[in-house]
Amino acid sequence: MRRSFWRDTLGEISAARAFRGYPVRMAGEFEFIEWLKSQQRASTLVPVPAGDDLAVLKWAADDLLLVGVDQVLDGVHFDSAVHSPRLIGAKVMNRNLSDCAAMACLPAAAVVSAALPAGCGLEYARELYLGMKGAARKFDCEIVGGDTGSWGGRLALSVTILGRSAGIQPVTRANAHPGDGVYVTGPLGGSILGRHMTFEPRVELARKIAMGFGASSMIDLSDGLSRDLCQVCRASKVGAVIEAGRVPIHSDAVELSKRDGIDPLRHALDDGEDYELLFTSAVPPGIGTLVGNITARQEVVLEKSPGVEEPLTPRGWEHMM
Amino acid sequence: MRRSFWRDTLGEISAARAFRGYPVRMAGEFEFIEWLKSQQRASTLVPVPAGDDLAVLKWAADDLLLVGVDQVLDGVHFDSAVHSPRLIGAKVMNRNLSDCAAMACLPAAAVVSAALPAGCGLEYARELYLGMKGAARKFDCEIVGGDTGSWGGRLALSVTILGRSAGIQPVTRANAHPGDGVYVTGPLGGSILGRHMTFEPRVELARKIAMGFGASSMIDLSDGLSRDLCQVCRASKVGAVIEAGRVPIHSDAVELSKRDGIDPLRHALDDGEDYELLFTSAVPPGIGTLVGNITARQEVVLEKSPGVEEPLTPRGWEHMM
Repeated sequence: MRRSFWRDTLGEISAARAFRGYPVRMAGEFEFIEWLKSQQRASTLVPVPAGDDLAVLKWAADDLLLVGVDQVLDGVHFDSAVHSPRLIGAKVMNRNLSDCAAMACLPAAAVVSAALPAGCGLEYARELYLGMKGAARKFDCEIVGGDTGSWGGRLALSVTILGRSAGIQPVTRANAHPGDGVYVTGPLGGSILGRHMTFEPRVELARKIAMGFGASSMIDLSDGLSRDLCQVCRASKVGAVIEAGRVPIHSDAVELSKRDGIDPLRHALDDGEDYELLFTSAVPPGIGTLVGNITARQEVVLEKSPGVEEPLTPRGWEHMM
Repeated sequence: MRRSFWRDTLGEISAARAFRGYPVRMAGEFEFIEWLKSQQRASTLVPVPAGDDLAVLKWAADDLLLVGVDQVLDGVHFDSAVHSPRLIGAKVMNRNLSDCAAMACLPAAAVVSAALPAGCGLEYARELYLGMKGAARKFDCEIVGGDTGSWGGRLALSVTILGRSAGIQPVTRANAHPGDGVYVTGPLGGSILGRHMTFEPRVELARKIAMGFGASSMIDLSDGLSRDLCQVCRASKVGAVIEAGRVPIHSDAVELSKRDGIDPLRHALDDGEDYELLFTSAVPPGIGTLVGNITARQEVVLEKSPGVEEPLTPRGWEHMM
């Protein structure tokens, strides 16, 4: 019984050696599609057994449907010469799961597109898929379909995630109020040393934050605190003061500082891909670390010491390797 | 009021000149995101105004949710040296809309990921988006979010489409029965001459087919009749006889035949990217052209003349340019 689809273009993987010519369809092609199907399991979400061109889902009437897409590109978000396909697959899925965390929804289903370099082989494709599946399954999220092709280009993976509100109103970026505290869920900076490939999306923690005391806004720290906080402030039409002494600095930021001479605090403020949550709350949440406050004046500033402020300019980045 | 999200990584476009270094965030970045948002319009589907990390949709309780993903890759599905970004954008969206047609559902929303070659520029990205949006709007389908990044690789676009059943049970590939007629909705072959970039997805026609007389199976002809019919037969555990004289041959197939000496019928049977529908029905549908019949023996054959049969081996391809 087929519970999902995988496009026939998966067969293009097997055409690797015929790129720019007619693909030679090899035995491995259908085997790979069958293997992918065998990896999928039954779900109340997927009621129609034979969705082929598309997967067919039954969405619960009381659930809002949240949808987003996030890709990882070779040389930007990972380096295929360094990172294993299992890790790369896990990363693209975890980035999407982290987006679910940022909205306090539960991941439900995902579809995948993969552009595979000609000649990468079926075993490599399998490892990518297993990385994605493993990450998704931790959150009871099922990969319900995909499109895989081989080409003369580099490895690119894109995941679309479907989340469900599951009883909690989605937490956006747009509702922070002056006087709210600004909190982060973990130490920041230096993820380039390896954490950017191995982080755990904060899905359960986000649900606790949203349910427990009602966060006024939330975002996942993918582009760095200085950049992501600016997104919240812009969306909410507020400003913020971050107190330098309160920012939790990851040991990776300290380590990186030894190598590049940049202040560990700067790494904590500007480095991307922490995938911790930043949220705001009018009341002490009992979760996370207070790092500052939301202000009415629409500026984001860093208070280096009492009374000594400087603009907190967005300097976060996506890892460019 | 924000009705959808565009990831901040859109900013990576503006970092083109800094690939493999820290991106230089330029003024164009936020302008582009704001421009994207301004392109989106209000919809009953998108009730929560400020979805940031994810778009928030309200799914109707009686609608099945159909989801699929389809990508186009430079050098495989288009040639960026030849085709305009507007055409490329339209193609990736139309491929997804054609998947909706294949299942007889109505397109509802889409999310997009784009991997842009470093240096392609904002104007090019805008044109890609306008191509996608223009194609989607024809079917009242809204692009509700996306992820765009620039990289050292080639242009890759991936679209995830959400369709809704809207009162019609999805038509799968798996329900063709011996004795059913096999029909196609238009002439086939030679799409490489240009039609593969400019086709119209058969969404309304598919609804008529599914509603009027109840097609037993349906697929869109993306990989060529010989390949796609095999998919239907494999899924339905049946075979088929195609009558050579009945296959409608496109004038492009005749034109291509003059150039390459290959029989126009072979082009009609094997060429990909026609994006017509192939469907099966127990009763004459009054739509499409009868090209053969479903059989109980699990083989797909071509009847070249009465009594003269040969195996119809899947030879379709994705365009490799």
